[in-house]
Amino acid sequence: MIPEEIIRSLAQTTPSKIVLLVLDGIGGLPREGRTELEAAHTPSLDKLASCSELGLTDPVGRGITPGSGPSHLALFGYDPLRYEIGRGVLEALGVGLEMTDRDVAGRGNFATMEHGHITDRRAGRIATEKNKELCCLLAKSIPRVQDAEVIIDPGMEHRFTVMFRADGLDDRLADADPQKAPAEPLPAHALAPEAERTAGIVNEYIRRANEVLRDQHPANTILLRGFARFPHIPSMSDLFKLQPAAIAAYPMYRGLARLVGMDVLDTGPTFADEIATLKRHWDNFDFFFLHYKDTDKAGEDGDFDAKVAALERFDARLPDVLALGPDVLAVSGDHSTPSILAAHGWQPVPALVSSAYCGADHVSRFTERDCAGGALGILPAQDLMPILMANALRLAKYGA
Amino acid sequence: MIPEEIIRSLAQTTPSKIVLLVLDGIGGLPREGRTELEAAHTPSLDKLASCSELGLTDPVGRGITPGSGPSHLALFGYDPLRYEIGRGVLEALGVGLEMTDRDVAGRGNFATMEHGHITDRRAGRIATEKNKELCCLLAKSIPRVQDAEVIIDPGMEHRFTVMFRADGLDDRLADADPQKAPAEPLPAHALAPEAERTAGIVNEYIRRANEVLRDQHPANTILLRGFARFPHIPSMSDLFKLQPAAIAAYPMYRGLARLVGMDVLDTGPTFADEIATLKRHWDNFDFFFLHYKDTDKAGEDGDFDAKVAALERFDARLPDVLALGPDVLAVSGDHSTPSILAAHGWQPVPALVSSAYCGADHVSRFTERDCAGGALGILPAQDLMPILMANALRLAKYGA
Repeated sequence: MIPEEIIRSLAQTTPSKIVLLVLDGIGGLPREGRTELEAAHTPSLDKLASCSELGLTDPVGRGITPGSGPSHLALFGYDPLRYEIGRGVLEALGVGLEMTDRDVAGRGNFATMEHGHITDRRAGRIATEKNKELCCLLAKSIPRVQDAEVIIDPGMEHRFTVMFRADGLDDRLADADPQKAPAEPLPAHALAPEAERTAGIVNEYIRRANEVLRDQHPANTILLRGFARFPHIPSMSDLFKLQPAAIAAYPMYRGLARLVGMDVLDTGPTFADEIATLKRHWDNFDFFFLHYKDTDKAGEDGDFDAKVAALERFDARLPDVLALGPDVLAVSGDHSTPSILAAHGWQPVPALVSSAYCGADHVSRFTERDCAGGALGILPAQDLMPILMANALRLAKYGA
Repeated sequence: MIPEEIIRSLAQTTPSKIVLLVLDGIGGLPREGRTELEAAHTPSLDKLASCSELGLTDPVGRGITPGSGPSHLALFGYDPLRYEIGRGVLEALGVGLEMTDRDVAGRGNFATMEHGHITDRRAGRIATEKNKELCCLLAKSIPRVQDAEVIIDPGMEHRFTVMFRADGLDDRLADADPQKAPAEPLPAHALAPEAERTAGIVNEYIRRANEVLRDQHPANTILLRGFARFPHIPSMSDLFKLQPAAIAAYPMYRGLARLVGMDVLDTGPTFADEIATLKRHWDNFDFFFLHYKDTDKAGEDGDFDAKVAALERFDARLPDVLALGPDVLAVSGDHSTPSILAAHGWQPVPALVSSAYCGADHVSRFTERDCAGGALGILPAQDLMPILMANALRLAKYGA
């Protein structure tokens, strides 16, 4: 992998457009001898594969199952081991909160306290509706603690996200969560002297929340963990001299794109909406990240046939993207989500690069097995961006 | 990639001969479906490929288009990101100047000055003959500045190379070149206190050159840039315990070989001459680097058919090399120069390793597409040398 400073020194602007199509969780495993990609009828992908360069990307490292954060960072050309995205931040991005540099975000649980002890870390998995009601109550009752604004946002069941916004906050805090029950409540503990003030704010918030929730048994207390500030990552325009745009329906991926300085475009919930957005903004950007969620959702559900169908729906729309005539088109995924695992997997991810200069290989189907024999080989996902840049003639020669 | 100190600790001497045949710019891209290598009739390479191990090398990193300096360093087994060869040094090597440890070399332009401003950075691209005449004039008029000997050597059109030779010179100088016109002349500026004296020498040289060239409009001034000292790179005999020889007709590649301590053999301008040189010196060295330039030249010219012809000429001579019976033979290139790009490219480079212990793969043609399926895989070019050393049984076991 090429160091960032070298990429930055070589990046140049050309009148070219790069499209990165990310099929979330695309990689699969065989059921009765065929993977989801092998079982799917994908004439457009196959036709494209026959004149493209293919390979398999490795999001973080061999054998490592990545979360969405590191896997997208790698696809965007960043070292996923160098830039850590804290859980609180990922949570905030996932629910669509816009984080600023002054925020510390954490994940929260509603929990049950009895006789001064945490007896249920999930408050009996209260209904999501109840969760919303309680978050509203907390938001109204405790809008600020000292000089910090507090933003709280409900998730599913007992989960919520909380952000503390003030100057000079520090995220070096241990979890305010005993991680087991029954157990005594654990105040947030500063892991560095500079975080003492933040710990005080968090602990005062918990104390006041306990008062507000006193009569809300089983959801009569809160646990907070995964405190994190917004990470400082060089923007794609700094690193690659690109004007990048993200087209993604889900908040998490919009947030991840924002982390690397992409313009996040308004779009509707379907892939057809995303492609319409791409068309509408075609002239305004030179790099487009399009996120397709259905493949991952089906994989996570363990629904092989639904994943096949999601791939076929994608394939049917692919010609609309090709019709725009991108100079460089990549089709890949952030990680594998094999249906038989019903979870993210560590398997390398099919990748396809098409351009006037991509060369060719013997591969003419976009499947895990075929990509293994492609000319891209098996490469770190982080290396895909330099290859796309090169194909757009956007990387100057290194050395003389 | 294995750290140098490990290679150094494992290297041992065996009675074996390694030949590295470098076809400059060998990798290509398809025109009408076939690359230059695919279009060429190369029976000798194909026959060799069928009993060799094949793969693709990546000179500097995925997506990176390398210059000749870093790409050759990688082929010679060095980290191309660790050892930087300054522009001035490469220029000096390219025109065949022998640099010493006491030299600072720079690239020069004859330029036009009017009313105290640089108005043309290339002096109207004066004829090469005129350039030679002016370099002669400068060499005679300003053989020394203070205690520094000045060596000047003409290039093509307005370009030349200049070297300052004295004890204690320092190359941390900004360019004495405004890089645009019209602009005021820019004196060489020291980037470190230790370089002040060198800046003074360079600036005095420019001042005196301006006097000498006063009546030579449009070539009445000079611009100097890319100041660099000879880099310190461990020799191949230190690193690999080899006695290496270079056979290359072009000054640049002779110079690059000298950088890593190869004996540079006198040879004629053709590949046949180079092979005759190889035969003549067969008993005196155990590692030979043979450089074949025609493939790159044709690629740079965008002449697909000429590149095919160059490959076929190489192929016709290959049996002469095989007849010498090298224990290990590698055929590869420093980088790709696809004719359709008419420039160096970032594409991985076909590589072939033949020895009694190389193993075999399913590949029996030496082309980009076929090499992608070879048993060497896609590997950093820097890894090729350890593989050649291993095949010569010149690397001891690591650990017990």
